[in-house]
Amino acid sequence: MKFSGSDVISMQEFSKEGVFEVLSHAQRIKEEGPRVDLSGLVLANLFFEPSTRTKLSFETAMKRLGGEVISIDSVRASSIKKGETLADTVRVIEGYADGLVLRHPKEGAAKMAARFVDCPVINAGDGSNEHPTQTLTDLYTIWREKGRIDGLNIAVMGDLKYGRTVHSLVIPLSMFDVNLFLISPPQLEIRSEILNDIKRNKADIHKSSFIESLIGDIDILYATRIQEERFADPNEYEKVSGSYKIDKKLLNGAKKDLILMHPLPRVDEINPEVDQLDAACYFEQSANGVTIRMALLEMILGGVLDE
Amino acid sequence: MKFSGSDVISMQEFSKEGVFEVLSHAQRIKEEGPRVDLSGLVLANLFFEPSTRTKLSFETAMKRLGGEVISIDSVRASSIKKGETLADTVRVIEGYADGLVLRHPKEGAAKMAARFVDCPVINAGDGSNEHPTQTLTDLYTIWREKGRIDGLNIAVMGDLKYGRTVHSLVIPLSMFDVNLFLISPPQLEIRSEILNDIKRNKADIHKSSFIESLIGDIDILYATRIQEERFADPNEYEKVSGSYKIDKKLLNGAKKDLILMHPLPRVDEINPEVDQLDAACYFEQSANGVTIRMALLEMILGGVLDE
Amino acid sequence: MKFSGSDVISMQEFSKEGVFEVLSHAQRIKEEGPRVDLSGLVLANLFFEPSTRTKLSFETAMKRLGGEVISIDSVRASSIKKGETLADTVRVIEGYADGLVLRHPKEGAAKMAARFVDCPVINAGDGSNEHPTQTLTDLYTIWREKGRIDGLNIAVMGDLKYGRTVHSLVIPLSMFDVNLFLISPPQLEIRSEILNDIKRNKADIHKSSFIESLIGDIDILYATRIQEERFADPNEYEKVSGSYKIDKKLLNGAKKDLILMHPLPRVDEINPEVDQLDAACYFEQSANGVTIRMALLEMILGGVLDE
Repeated sequence: MKFSGSDVISMQEFSKEGVFEVLSHAQRIKEEGPRVDLSGLVLANLFFEPSTRTKLSFETAMKRLGGEVISIDSVRASSIKKGETLADTVRVIEGYADGLVLRHPKEGAAKMAARFVDCPVINAGDGSNEHPTQTLTDLYTIWREKGRIDGLNIAVMGDLKYGRTVHSLVIPLSMFDVNLFLISPPQLEIRSEILNDIKRNKADIHKSSFIESLIGDIDILYATRIQEERFADPNEYEKVSGSYKIDKKLLNGAKKDLILMHPLPRVDEINPEVDQLDAACYFEQSANGVTIRMALLEMILGGVLDE
Repeated sequence: MKFSGSDVISMQEFSKEGVFEVLSHAQRIKEEGPRVDLSGLVLANLFFEPSTRTKLSFETAMKRLGGEVISIDSVRASSIKKGETLADTVRVIEGYADGLVLRHPKEGAAKMAARFVDCPVINAGDGSNEHPTQTLTDLYTIWREKGRIDGLNIAVMGDLKYGRTVHSLVIPLSMFDVNLFLISPPQLEIRSEILNDIKRNKADIHKSSFIESLIGDIDILYATRIQEERFADPNEYEKVSGSYKIDKKLLNGAKKDLILMHPLPRVDEINPEVDQLDAACYFEQSANGVTIRMALLEMILGGVLDE
Repeated sequence: MKFSGSDVISMQEFSKEGVFEVLSHAQRIKEEGPRVDLSGLVLANLFFEPSTRTKLSFETAMKRLGGEVISIDSVRASSIKKGETLADTVRVIEGYADGLVLRHPKEGAAKMAARFVDCPVINAGDGSNEHPTQTLTDLYTIWREKGRIDGLNIAVMGDLKYGRTVHSLVIPLSMFDVNLFLISPPQLEIRSEILNDIKRNKADIHKSSFIESLIGDIDILYATRIQEERFADPNEYEKVSGSYKIDKKLLNGAKKDLILMHPLPRVDEINPEVDQLDAACYFEQSANGVTIRMALLEMILGGVLDE
């Protein structure tokens, strides 16, 4: 894949080879440090929705490469939205920066922005649609911990209906030769259009409401938040959420080398008593997000793999 | 003019030669890149009013020169205002920074600040008074597009009564040998004190309410926003605003090399169908703002033209 | 004391020698400039309470050393607080940064954070407990102005009951051979537990309600804000606050080389007519805060005194 000067809008533009180019380059950065110096270049972080972690992760990645960052956060963005269209805003910002990172509540916002500017646009989340740099971070974490993706038993658990992270992740995962377990309460099952999509791919898909009976077979357990607001009946929530709380007792039945992931922030899906276990990988996963973004910025703005 | 270590408070301190020193230096930066490295220097962006564009433009300029920026934006500034005088705030910030950029709702704020600190102060807008770096950006854009300012027919159109940008611009323009057309609804005519001022200068001043009959003669059309709030009667606004909407149809009657400018953000003064035309220069104008600010920072903090 | 890689949580961890190591290193930076280049390193400024000055002071210090800063300010922090524990937040941020600066409304927050992360944590204020970098700034200012701390007559005046700055300062001051005058209205006297603590140390402690009779004997007058809200009866406040307003008339009776300090912001404790006098040292004191923080960052992140 060609990365230099390119946009990163959707995981659907990534071939399997393209994914591994990014993961391998991230691993090289992790082991050997950055390869290019982006000093003199300016990255614009345009966040039209609050998102401290993603914003700081991009900012850190650019700064660790020697580059500079300018930011519009959600507070200032709200005053901009009143006055001008997104198309105008991104064209103004293009006059300042060498690349744009865009988080926006509207699906398709990054794609639209990319049509209006010549500089690279990276999608940092567009509504409930995609969040490709989070997905690459997740894939990198799995691959780094296990040395492979093919052949793994991977469970994605929690709110599979509303979570953008989940949508973005299961599609590329389904292209691998994996057993993919989709674990959620009936009210929060994955949407049928996504399920139909991924069923056409390589992975074997299994749906379930409970984790207990599966925990002994799983290599990767990817937990996500279940929000009380999704349930009309609070009792219903209590019943359900209880069965998704990960604690030492549940993990007693797990494989010795189980890897536990979570996109964070967590509420009470994972008991803090688990943090000390070898399985707990969510803080590394978060830190890997910086490495993946450094890799992308080196490839997109630094042209590092273009030789 | 001496720039090294100097304040930039008002266009009235600029001789015509001083203006061209800045424009020429900006052009050199545009063609050859920065000449000095401001690394180790810190610029403080003090914005007591919201202003994303001007703030990011200064920030980008300083960072492209290798310098660092610290910022107080309007959200944080409001909590400061409660606690201490502007004179105290700028003296504290002087202890951190090598130069101050100040946007403040009160007329004369930058001038006052400059009396209290030893480091250079740049006015980034003081109430409805002045905004000299915007003015230099506008003059640079005209000069860069046309190769000259003398001899041009320049129309400034829209709200000429309340717009700070307009006040700041027409005064230096009137010192050139230009035909200056002031086009506004009667309710939003330029204030008589400014009109009297500029009538004493070199330019020929013409007032009008309509653009249609003039469009064929104009070299530069500088449009600004007309805000509905300025009109007691909404019907009055509708009538007026309609006659200031720039679209392809209006521009059919224009000179082939007309340049269309706007300080942005626009609301609906300029139809987006115009964006693709060669005349459309407002995004370049915005980007020129970074170049002008780089030029000023090189001259003021970097002493670049002092040899 | 070992500084490289260490936390700075409380003044109680500082030996007198440790204090002087920091002050001497700050003085060296003031005279000779920075000794290390922290480029490539990232400092995270985590401010869960508004604090423009302290935040910008750390940011400036890191940037003047060539390092980079990422920030969470109180606006964004409030949205984080809803979603996750401080222990989770600091572990996520540790994945981005090489050191954390933490301001938090809860006493003990910095200490708790330091238990959860491996990177250095610097306390930038934890509730009404400690603010050690302010204290080191104050000690540095005294020592720099007077060449010593032992042997001085030092008055701390104003609200001695609620001010965090005062608590943090009088404890280390009491370890020196000084006369320490504690001047406050009866309602705002220093808390008995702190008074008992410092009475055990080397300093001679004197309590008073008035400054006038003492002004001729004092070398350092450290004024702090008295807030009207502390008084049930506004007349009581008026009476009291009047006797703590420092003006030229009061200073007529002072030693010729009196040094007047204030942690800023001031309200009306110090009449601006005093700003021009040689005694006025509060803006220098504020600027010294950058130097002290540069010294600490060089020692903690740059390992500068470890040879």
